[in-house]
Amino acid sequence: MSPFAETPEPPYYAVIFSNLRTPDDPEGYGGMADRMVELAAGQPGYLGVESVRGADGFGITVSYWRSLEDIAAWKAHVEHQEAQRLGHQRWYQQFELRVARVEQARSMKKPAR
Amino acid sequence: MSPFAETPEPPYYAVIFSNLRTPDDPEGYGGMADRMVELAAGQPGYLGVESVRGADGFGITVSYWRSLEDIAAWKAHVEHQEAQRLGHQRWYQQFELRVARVEQARSMKKPAR
Repeated sequence: MSPFAETPEPPYYAVIFSNLRTPDDPEGYGGMADRMVELAAGQPGYLGVESVRGADGFGITVSYWRSLEDIAAWKAHVEHQEAQRLGHQRWYQQFELRVARVEQARSMKKPAR
Repeated sequence: MSPFAETPEPPYYAVIFSNLRTPDDPEGYGGMADRMVELAAGQPGYLGVESVRGADGFGITVSYWRSLEDIAAWKAHVEHQEAQRLGHQRWYQQFELRVARVEQARSMKKPAR
């Protein structure tokens, strides 16, 4: 599966979530992260997600949405709220969450080799 | 050194660069990537950068800037232009570059442990 999100022409919105994991509870975190990816994909206005984590525990996840209202609804989703609570309490040492309006986009893709 | 960018209150701009490396020329790429981080940090309007690459070659780099004009000037920098040319030709299999206006931000940081 491609790690790239297939997004429409701008404008749309990005939630840039930069985070540093604690070393705690990797199984619980992994299960919840998978569940949140699955759940987000079914929400209104969801456009895609791109996510990477380095060996040092620092990660960036960018999710893409049609509107600020869709982002607010996802933030308020009851299962996501519980994930956020556990993230604060247990899984994240530090994070920065930025909501941004995508205004320009360009891409490059070479044939598979 | 912290992997987080220390950005001011919004609004400001983010360049979200999602990319997949080719397996080619890791030394050349690494040297150029380091040089571009150093060079970007000295440009007008530069606010910070956050960057992660996974073991599978997929990476996300987000750089933060004061304005669209600052981003355009950095894109046009002669040394950066050469890096972009080599990236296209040699180092990247695929990329997506999105320019976005950061409108909201929040953060969390726990005491070191």
